[in-house]
Amino acid sequence: MVHINDNFTKLPSAYLFSDIARKVEAFAASHPGEKIIRMGIGDVTRPICPAASEALHRATADESEAATFRGYGPEQGYGFLREAIAEGDYRSRGIEVSADEIFVSDGAKSDTGNIGDILASDTRVAMTDPVYPVYIDTNVMAGRAGTLGSDGRWSRIIYLPVTAGNGFVPSLPSERPDVIYLCFPNNPTGTVLTRSQLKVWVDYALREGSLILFDAAYEAFVSSPEVPRSIYEIEGARRVAIEFRSFSKTAGFTGLRCGYTVIPRELCGLAADGSEVSLHRLWLRRQTTKFNGASYLTQRAAEAIYSEEGRRQVAETIAYYKHNASTLLTSLREAGLEAYGGTDSPYIWLRTPDGMTSWGFFDMLLERCRVVGTPGCGFGPSGEGYLRLTAFATHEATAEAASRIAALRL
Amino acid sequence: MVHINDNFTKLPSAYLFSDIARKVEAFAASHPGEKIIRMGIGDVTRPICPAASEALHRATADESEAATFRGYGPEQGYGFLREAIAEGDYRSRGIEVSADEIFVSDGAKSDTGNIGDILASDTRVAMTDPVYPVYIDTNVMAGRAGTLGSDGRWSRIIYLPVTAGNGFVPSLPSERPDVIYLCFPNNPTGTVLTRSQLKVWVDYALREGSLILFDAAYEAFVSSPEVPRSIYEIEGARRVAIEFRSFSKTAGFTGLRCGYTVIPRELCGLAADGSEVSLHRLWLRRQTTKFNGASYLTQRAAEAIYSEEGRRQVAETIAYYKHNASTLLTSLREAGLEAYGGTDSPYIWLRTPDGMTSWGFFDMLLERCRVVGTPGCGFGPSGEGYLRLTAFATHEATAEAASRIAALRL
Repeated sequence: MVHINDNFTKLPSAYLFSDIARKVEAFAASHPGEKIIRMGIGDVTRPICPAASEALHRATADESEAATFRGYGPEQGYGFLREAIAEGDYRSRGIEVSADEIFVSDGAKSDTGNIGDILASDTRVAMTDPVYPVYIDTNVMAGRAGTLGSDGRWSRIIYLPVTAGNGFVPSLPSERPDVIYLCFPNNPTGTVLTRSQLKVWVDYALREGSLILFDAAYEAFVSSPEVPRSIYEIEGARRVAIEFRSFSKTAGFTGLRCGYTVIPRELCGLAADGSEVSLHRLWLRRQTTKFNGASYLTQRAAEAIYSEEGRRQVAETIAYYKHNASTLLTSLREAGLEAYGGTDSPYIWLRTPDGMTSWGFFDMLLERCRVVGTPGCGFGPSGEGYLRLTAFATHEATAEAASRIAALRL
Repeated sequence: MVHINDNFTKLPSAYLFSDIARKVEAFAASHPGEKIIRMGIGDVTRPICPAASEALHRATADESEAATFRGYGPEQGYGFLREAIAEGDYRSRGIEVSADEIFVSDGAKSDTGNIGDILASDTRVAMTDPVYPVYIDTNVMAGRAGTLGSDGRWSRIIYLPVTAGNGFVPSLPSERPDVIYLCFPNNPTGTVLTRSQLKVWVDYALREGSLILFDAAYEAFVSSPEVPRSIYEIEGARRVAIEFRSFSKTAGFTGLRCGYTVIPRELCGLAADGSEVSLHRLWLRRQTTKFNGASYLTQRAAEAIYSEEGRRQVAETIAYYKHNASTLLTSLREAGLEAYGGTDSPYIWLRTPDGMTSWGFFDMLLERCRVVGTPGCGFGPSGEGYLRLTAFATHEATAEAASRIAALRL
């Protein structure tokens, strides 16, 4: 019998969101007819914008005629989209990123999950805690996490707590990591780093030779002027950082699947013989070998959101969600709850009342308010005592959820 | 500086198809206005069928309205598609595969590339030679291939030659592999195994405890009654085989991106502690962690090809390509060339004339016929002395290419 990758057996039995789905399903089954407001999983609810919709119809027409049919595209994405991204997300904001440094994919989850393929198997990894579970789980699968302790911490992971205690600004690690995962605006806390706070990390990486994996999936929600939308706004970041972006939360492409990864040309890693190797070249090789490009239709839809109408329409959707976040933040704080995030982010991070556990608060919100959140402890040990709510519901459902929670009089 | 996955440095510098693209580009630039017939890369040219096109327009409409919008879908694919596949590709043909054993993805290249994630890093791998380069390259990246010898063979790969010498039927290996990659109808040779020939491999795997990775991407081209379309037609295969399928060649989805992988519930691997672990469960964990599902639009299009009209339309496209294969086979043989495959496959495998090398023949066909093939040596050492032509061009271009080659009077 074939031997398996034994690292998989170290993973706790199920994925956070599957656990939640099962709980909610059971509750719904035993409470038929009751309206459950789902603010757990970070999925959007607004339809894709008209510009994207029109692009999909046009691209479908392309695929339906021999003269315009497109088969395999470039694995790193079509030039039309990479150019639109380079101009729309970077050059127009004064940031140096060229089209050939962009790798279009089927989503940031795939990219942040697969990036480890190009790194040494004994890489020491640091990440903020709480954190998007994909970073942890993929490092467990790759054998980089060590063993899971009874405190919920993996022995080889360097944890960077972000909690109310440090104002959600992680401190530099005492031990040097090879790789540092940073996600800002942060998932799950919804908090941000200012330019000067992020600069501390870029400077550290430059000094220590660490690689920053910067997940900017939520950058579209940034409105505070002191908060960067890209790590490349920070001087020197091109020599230390890979940036991941997504069309999921901005353009509502969670169902269409599109994201991209930026690897600057000058970013290098070290081979065993001591030579410097371009990480761009390694990722290109990984992608051309194990990936065949994102759907042509999806790429046309993504291109369309960089048009004038596309931009305007996407901005409306973001404003819609930001309005929800603001509603939640205001109501929950008025109700006496400690709530964070929600300003430059679609996530609200709630402190559980009365020292309640995350799952305890989750159960209470589900049972008494019919509101589904995500227990903070599911994102890591430092998430215990918190719960995440998302701003992706409708205005009506969001207001309803906020008033149901406020009525608890916690 | 971060240490890289050093296995990447062992890979020869470029991917086969990129090399070809560069050569053809250079030739086209120096011969403007000349019509080059591209029969190199295995990409389709016929548009997607009307049933798929209509499904894409409908799915676009779904995504464009809040009431019907779909965000994240199940990572393993929507039930509507997995049910259609289970019924259309298996149960209706008397093969036992259930919907929950099917994992829908963005393509067979991703799946055959990523499957190694769930296997031990020291897995001994066997594969037919010549072979789809993705199998080799992904095993090199995972550190399973050993070192590349001057004969073009990797030290830890067990090669199973398929050549004219053995009638393109691989012999059982003398050394036991943990994993055996089989692709039939074969890429690149276009040859097939009959049910009894494939049974030899299933029996071997049952006896030796090997895992067969069966790539059935070209099954739609099978018309010979003695040739299986699925490895699960062979008794016992559910206990030893994973099957990969693609909508690329059947439904023309090379641009839309869709494939699927079947892992039977009873298929197991061995953990370090000696316990048996379900490979289905491991792959589910891999996919839920590193993948977020194929595009909803693509999945609706894939579902549509299982409708009555969809089936009929796809069958017409397959017949179109099969007619091309037949044209090529007949003309090339009449011209005195040794040609294989092309009956249950869209690929023709040509013996180079006069002991010419693969690249020599490639250059000659490009320069004298303006026809692009793929040098057989690009698929492995046993491919030297062969060249692959595809049946994916138009009837007109295929007939033109066949007559240009025949006119060489080789």
